[in-house]
Amino acid sequence: MSFEFTLHARDGRARAGEIRTPRGNIRTPAFMPVGTAGTVKAMLPESVRATGADIVLGNTYHLMLRPGAERIARLGGLHRFMNWQGPILTDSGGFQVMSLAALRKLSEEGVRFASHIDGARHLLSPETSMEIQRLLGSDIVMAFDECTPFPADHATARRSMELSMRWAQRSRDAFGDRQGHALFGIQQGSVYRDLRAQSAEKLTEIGFDGYAVGGLAVGEGQEAMFEVLDYAPEMLPADRPRYLMGVGKPDDIIGAVARGIDMMDCVLPTRSGRTGQAWTRRGAVNLRNARHRDDPRPLDEACTCPACRGYSRAYLHHTIRAGEIIGAMLLTWHNLHYYQQLMAGLREAITAGQLNTFRQEFERQRAGGDIEPL
Amino acid sequence: MSFEFTLHARDGRARAGEIRTPRGNIRTPAFMPVGTAGTVKAMLPESVRATGADIVLGNTYHLMLRPGAERIARLGGLHRFMNWQGPILTDSGGFQVMSLAALRKLSEEGVRFASHIDGARHLLSPETSMEIQRLLGSDIVMAFDECTPFPADHATARRSMELSMRWAQRSRDAFGDRQGHALFGIQQGSVYRDLRAQSAEKLTEIGFDGYAVGGLAVGEGQEAMFEVLDYAPEMLPADRPRYLMGVGKPDDIIGAVARGIDMMDCVLPTRSGRTGQAWTRRGAVNLRNARHRDDPRPLDEACTCPACRGYSRAYLHHTIRAGEIIGAMLLTWHNLHYYQQLMAGLREAITAGQLNTFRQEFERQRAGGDIEPL
Repeated sequence: MSFEFTLHARDGRARAGEIRTPRGNIRTPAFMPVGTAGTVKAMLPESVRATGADIVLGNTYHLMLRPGAERIARLGGLHRFMNWQGPILTDSGGFQVMSLAALRKLSEEGVRFASHIDGARHLLSPETSMEIQRLLGSDIVMAFDECTPFPADHATARRSMELSMRWAQRSRDAFGDRQGHALFGIQQGSVYRDLRAQSAEKLTEIGFDGYAVGGLAVGEGQEAMFEVLDYAPEMLPADRPRYLMGVGKPDDIIGAVARGIDMMDCVLPTRSGRTGQAWTRRGAVNLRNARHRDDPRPLDEACTCPACRGYSRAYLHHTIRAGEIIGAMLLTWHNLHYYQQLMAGLREAITAGQLNTFRQEFERQRAGGDIEPL
Repeated sequence: MSFEFTLHARDGRARAGEIRTPRGNIRTPAFMPVGTAGTVKAMLPESVRATGADIVLGNTYHLMLRPGAERIARLGGLHRFMNWQGPILTDSGGFQVMSLAALRKLSEEGVRFASHIDGARHLLSPETSMEIQRLLGSDIVMAFDECTPFPADHATARRSMELSMRWAQRSRDAFGDRQGHALFGIQQGSVYRDLRAQSAEKLTEIGFDGYAVGGLAVGEGQEAMFEVLDYAPEMLPADRPRYLMGVGKPDDIIGAVARGIDMMDCVLPTRSGRTGQAWTRRGAVNLRNARHRDDPRPLDEACTCPACRGYSRAYLHHTIRAGEIIGAMLLTWHNLHYYQQLMAGLREAITAGQLNTFRQEFERQRAGGDIEPL
């Protein structure tokens, strides 16, 4: 069985559909929880599934260093290793190697670097990234690219994009033909429309199973991001899924979906959960704040996640303050649940042609909540 | 409905029975997971229940300091606060205040001390301990005592025991008559038979719903502990539950049960789980050890806990080494599951009059395992 994308509905530029993979279907727009090192932090995989997630993301950079891609392959692949039977998308390692690795040196070949864990020397290149993602058993493989830093002047952004396009071709060549596995290309070009167009043209010419909008959510701010999203996704083939990497907050997600994005990932709900920040329909809530310590109410009385069904804000406050693992477990679960509820609401609204109404209701709830903003 | 203890079977000195409480029944011999600060660390309460635990323990010292007993009372009590609907036993705080608090000063009145969290001054005494445990809503309240340090000479142990007996009387007086809630006295006397006898006589004279053997598992070693357990439990009323505090490793538990103990608690399975140590029928296993890193086998192929059903030793090794929360979650779950399986096996063996066979099988499995000892 192969990889297929079907669109069920459109509402303006927004799309609702389904990606079919041998590991299961992915309802789009989809939010992918991040399982960096073989675990969506503080969650059991069955709990991740219970929140409504169809797919999780794994990080090539982290996994190649520890426990190692060859080791995971010998152990039966990443799905078996982390006990997640649904689809997995892996990034290429390109972003992490530039932000986390030591002694990194970028050349036409790729990036040579030292592990941030043990200092061992490695090379990430289109060819090694494809090989590592193959060893992991990834269902959706990302082309190896350079995430152009922000800000970048036009000449710098062009050179970076052109390098990524040469790497995209090498990724495509190295990936080969793998039945049931998909390869996604990544559009670059920073905030420059002409470069985004050139990148989209090149990627389409090479041909991929899906296309990511890369180089956003890197500090440019929501307004600048939305400006790019007002034109960039539509440059990519309409019959393939469009993936916005590393996004975002709930209102970023809604704005991206409204602009034609089908897939997203972000560490925000999981990372926030471990530090006491909850995402709710009424906005963000910092459970560390002392005003919660005597509050018997659930975080959100309308939420059906385990944190909201079984515990008071006072308990969440206490466990987060005391550094108890259950605090991270409950808030992570709540945040992922909220994010998946948001995605389900978006899919439903698009299908019903009611996305504008959904957005107005989202803003109304956020503005009128009794939970103070952060 | 009141607190009742029924013995179903005896095998030598070992007993199997049931404690009935308004919150539910406790099958004995029982192992109580420790939920120090309102959480059995790294576990959701429904998962604790799923391992087979009928009762959990809460720590008065930790809870009085954070979030505070009055706060928990205002929030509906400890059961609601931590979302555990079964029985809860709370200790008196006597042991923790002497091992954790700063600037502590013991007198006839009690122990004055400074919080290890914020330095605030507090008094723990028989009266304040009873009040705090009442505020928490504890089902089984422990008398306030001094856990006699080990080693102690006879005169020191006698003075300490006699103080604890005066405190036991004050605890009884302060506890009053609380329908459906039980008060347990605590035997002291260190390793001295005459003092244990005097302590038991005094406690029996005062009259409690159950009796703990205190002052053991404090560094005396298993052999010395078993010597005391060869006589101390039988000095206590046979028709009441006998609780050995702070024990222990699996073979400590078996030896204690064989000597007439009905209840135990220990941080070992939970604490070990967070540091990578697993308890199995084949002995203790340190998952941090590099020999596990390529091992595709489950920790114990015969175990039905989530860690053993879903993951390889290699995965447990990886997540523990990487400091991932799921490593602590899975190993804690496994350890509590193993402990509860052990208790179920003991209850079954006692009921069948097969405790000796059970002990031989335990030793055989431990000796013949393919998992190397720590």
